[in-house]
This record gives sequence, C-alpha cells and structure tokens, in this order.
Amino acid sequence: MYIYTNIIGSFVFDQKLNIIDKIQFSFNESKENMHLLSRNKGIDSEKKLLEKYPDAKKVASPLIINKILEKFKGNAKDFYDINIINTRRLISESVSDDDFIIQAVKTIETLDKTANSLVKRLRDWYELYLPEASNDIADNESFTKVILSKSRDELRKELDVTVSMGTELAKPDLDEIIDLAKMIKEIYEQRSVKEEYIAKVMKRLCPNTLEITGTMIGAKMFAQAGSLHDLVFMPASTIQLLGAEEALFRHIKTGSRPPKYGILLQHKLVAGAKKEMKGKVAKALADKISIAVKVDYFKGEPIGHRLYEELKKKFG
Amino acid sequence: MYIYTNIIGSFVFDQKLNIIDKIQFSFNESKENMHLLSRNKGIDSEKKLLEKYPDAKKVASPLIINKILEKFKGNAKDFYDINIINTRRLISESVSDDDFIIQAVKTIETLDKTANSLVKRLRDWYELYLPEASNDIADNESFTKVILSKSRDELRKELDVTVSMGTELAKPDLDEIIDLAKMIKEIYEQRSVKEEYIAKVMKRLCPNTLEITGTMIGAKMFAQAGSLHDLVFMPASTIQLLGAEEALFRHIKTGSRPPKYGILLQHKLVAGAKKEMKGKVAKALADKISIAVKVDYFKGEPIGHRLYEELKKKFG
Repeated sequence: MYIYTNIIGSFVFDQKLNIIDKIQFSFNESKENMHLLSRNKGIDSEKKLLEKYPDAKKVASPLIINKILEKFKGNAKDFYDINIINTRRLISESVSDDDFIIQAVKTIETLDKTANSLVKRLRDWYELYLPEASNDIADNESFTKVILSKSRDELRKELDVTVSMGTELAKPDLDEIIDLAKMIKEIYEQRSVKEEYIAKVMKRLCPNTLEITGTMIGAKMFAQAGSLHDLVFMPASTIQLLGAEEALFRHIKTGSRPPKYGILLQHKLVAGAKKEMKGKVAKALADKISIAVKVDYFKGEPIGHRLYEELKKKFG
Repeated sequence: MYIYTNIIGSFVFDQKLNIIDKIQFSFNESKENMHLLSRNKGIDSEKKLLEKYPDAKKVASPLIINKILEKFKGNAKDFYDINIINTRRLISESVSDDDFIIQAVKTIETLDKTANSLVKRLRDWYELYLPEASNDIADNESFTKVILSKSRDELRKELDVTVSMGTELAKPDLDEIIDLAKMIKEIYEQRSVKEEYIAKVMKRLCPNTLEITGTMIGAKMFAQAGSLHDLVFMPASTIQLLGAEEALFRHIKTGSRPPKYGILLQHKLVAGAKKEMKGKVAKALADKISIAVKVDYFKGEPIGHRLYEELKKKFG
C-alpha cells in the first residue's frame, strides 16, 4: 500500500494503485482554507491514514508517483480548479500597505501632470479675458485659486493694469472658464487627499522611515524600490541613488560623472546644503534611512526621531 | 504754417515749428475711443484747423516731419502710452467666437488625455481589489461608472468570478479608490459640458457648417485652421485634408501615398463608407463644407440642411 498526498487530499493505494481510502481536504471559500496549501494539513491527514493502514508506505519513488498521477488524470479538473483558486488566494493575500502607498504615489504623479496640462489650457483660455493675470501669477495652483476667488476688476486693480489686452466676456462664455478652473481645483484637492492618505499608511507601515524622509520622498522611494521589503535588503548606497538610475547607467556606459543622489535631492537637508556638501548629506541620510527601514520591517523600537535629530544636528 | 496729425491729435505749427494751435483727441476708457485710431477723426480735426488757418499746409515733406517729431520728444510718453493702450484695445477686440470654440476644443483634447491617464491609474489601483473588472470592462468611461455604481460583490456576480484574485480592502483604503473614480467622473462630465458649449457657440457662429460637420468635427477643423475666416479662404481640397498635414508632408517628401482625408475620417458618412469610397465621400463633404463656411461667414440664407441632405442621399 502507498500513501500519496497532493493539494486535494491524502490517498491510500493498493498494489494495483487503486484508491482504497482517502482524506479529501474540505474546500470552501473561507480564508482558513489557505492552510490546505501548507504542508501541515497534508502531514496530519497522512498521519491519520498511517494509523489506519500501518503497512502503507509514503510514496517517494518517482516511478510510482508518475503512475499514480496517471491514474489521477480523471481528477485533473479538480487539481486545476483548486490550484487556480489557491493561486488566486495567494495573489489576493499578497496585497499589502506597500501596494497602497505605491498606487497613491503614482496617482499623485499623474494628478500633477494632469493638473499642469489642464492649467496650461486654463491660462490660454483666461488670457482672452485678462492675459495680464497669467503673466503675473507663475504658480499653477495659485493661478487657479486666484481666478476663482477674484473678479476681473479686482484682479486688474491688484495687478495695476489700467487697460487690459483681454476682452470683457459674456457670462456664459466666462462660466466655461470658471467651470474648468473649479475642476482643476478639485484635482489639486484630490492630490492633497492622496498625500494625507500616504502619510497615514506610512505611519502604520514605517513610522521610523517616515520620520526621516517625510511623506512624499519616502513614498517615492517605495515606488522606486517596489516595497518596504525591497528597501530592507538594499545597501545604503543603492538607497542613496534611488531615482538616479538613468544617470547611474549613463555613468557606467559613458564614464560621465556618477550621480550622488536621486530622489533624496528633494529632501530639505540635501536641498538646503551647499553644493559641495549635498553628496555627503545624501550619503548620511541614506545611511539613516537604511537603518530605519530595517527597524520598521522587523517592528523594532521607535528610533526614527533620534536618527533624524542626529542628522539635523550635523547638517541642519 | 503747417498742420500735422498723429494719434494724440492735430497740431498747427508756425514757420519756427512752434505749436500755435491744436485739437487734441479726447481720451477716456470707453470703447468709442478706438475710432481715434481711424483716419476719420484725424481728417475731421485737420479740416477744422484748416478752416481756422486757411494758409496752413498739411505736412508732407519728410524733412519737416522729422523736425516736428524732434520737437515732440517731450510728448513721447503720451505717444507711447496712447499707442500701447490702443494696441491693447485692438488685441482685446479681436477676441471672437472662433477663439471660444478653439479654446474649448483644445480643452476637450486635454480632458481626454487626462481622463485616459487617470483611468489607467484607477484600473491599476482597483486591480488590488477586483482585477477581473478591469480586464472585463474595456471602455474607460464605463469602467469608471461601473465601479462607482456597483459593489464588489455585485460586480463579482455579474462578471461570474467565484474567487477573485483581488483582496478585500478596509474602508479607508477603498475610499481612496472611490474618491479618485469620482474625480475622474467629473472630468468626463466637464468634457460633455464643453462639448455642449461648443455646439452652442457654433450654432451662433456657423449654423450651416455645424449642420454638415456636427459639433466635434467642425470644431476640430476650426482649431486646425485657426478661425472661420481662415476656413472661408481655404480651397475645398485643403479642407478635405485638414488634420492630415503630417501624412501630406510625408507624401511630398518621400513620395508615400497622399492622404485622402484627415479630421473628416471621423465623420459618420466617411467612417461608414466602404474603403474604396472614403476618399470620394471626403471630397464631396469638403466641397459642401467649403460652401457652408462661406455662407456662415457672409451671413447668407440657411443652406446647411439642404447641403447635408444632398450628401446623405448620395452617400448615406
């Protein structure tokens, strides 16, 4: 007699390889069933069958396994179905906080691009009405807010324009511009909602890293690395250069100057440093981040604040 | 004595080129003042001064004009200011319905691109939750609406998915996705608002053209040509190829096959025609459009409906 176990159950075969007994794993849609995949369940059922059939041998020889699998052909659909379901479950359960952060970061990037190209249209259109405003207010978000909150006359006075090159518009024509501006304002609002969300998830997933990087830089590093797990196993020097991949490959290929920082350039400690110090600050920052991600991953004691204070003392 | 006129007024000079009399054009901010630029006002004031000083000669010799202009140097700021103001007015008054249409068309194009890239993000994010939906609903706008109107369970049943590869999300994590979808839905709404606006402006500016082209095709032709005026002075063969400029230049440069239609390919008569007929239909369509834009420009009798009926009879 042989005992053979696969994902649908444990089976006892006689010498002719007919199934004479089996413990089939129950299968329903609760999450518990994922354990059916784990070896434990197989070991349990094999043990039970062995008690009942002390003479049975666990199948090891590839020859016999092959023969058994052939006998199983009729059960192939069961195999297939359960396999699919379990694979789906594995994929389903692999969703983690990292994914939320990465989705939100990518969305913010798209929202930024989106807002920029729509404000370009808004400026162009509003220039029929009061071109001087577009010229004077360089920041896209401010421009959108200003034209929503101030009338043409108020703006004209504020910008000290006596005779505008723009034309007075009939209300329906102006309304179209204002409607567009309102929509763009919502895109900006959606952007800050997403940033708050990232901050919230990071606080739960990686409070120490967050303390050092701040929301957006940390989140961008996640998106670049792929997950917290990936960051943990990255050397500090790689963390330092995250986001500078292009420059790095150019350096390797053409011997151009190697990059000293990627995403970290946006960090206020690096941005605020003197040019010749930026590389050094980025390196120190990457070292601390490298520690913080490990503490976060292995759920260690809070250390982020202290690490950041050290950096600030040295470079701030 | 001499009489000299410029944009700030008419002036009488004695032999020594001192100003002995003048009619300075009144200048305030009402639109009426634009006429100050027209020659009529200058002719009027010169006439009045000539009645008073019948001996005076209108200045024609460049030598004397130059000398007078030198005397005027002190008035240069007046000149400059008034010139600027009048130029601004000219620009301001050049805004027309064409501009509104073109702005709205370009905005629609940007809204489309924007919606597409945001839906890509939305799909990616929603795939953590129910990946099967994204796969099944190809149209971006429908996808956005469906995930807003249906719960995961409803969708799962509808798509006949027993075990999803997606994961159940906590409400705050799901809310971020739904918020994004709501924003995208507003972009789609803004798009149709803008399309309605274009239809309204076209009805007022070019009802006959509108009758033949429909809203978006007509508007795109405007944007491509620059204005109704430009379309009026375009041969029908150019109208036929509007939007196919790239293919046309490639044809000229490399001898590749010449294009037969550009924007007009999207017209239902062309799109619905057999392949070998498309060029012919586009040509006939361009001929009718060429007539309609002229009727619209010169405010002729309504003719659009009849023109389109002729086309439909022949090709519909």
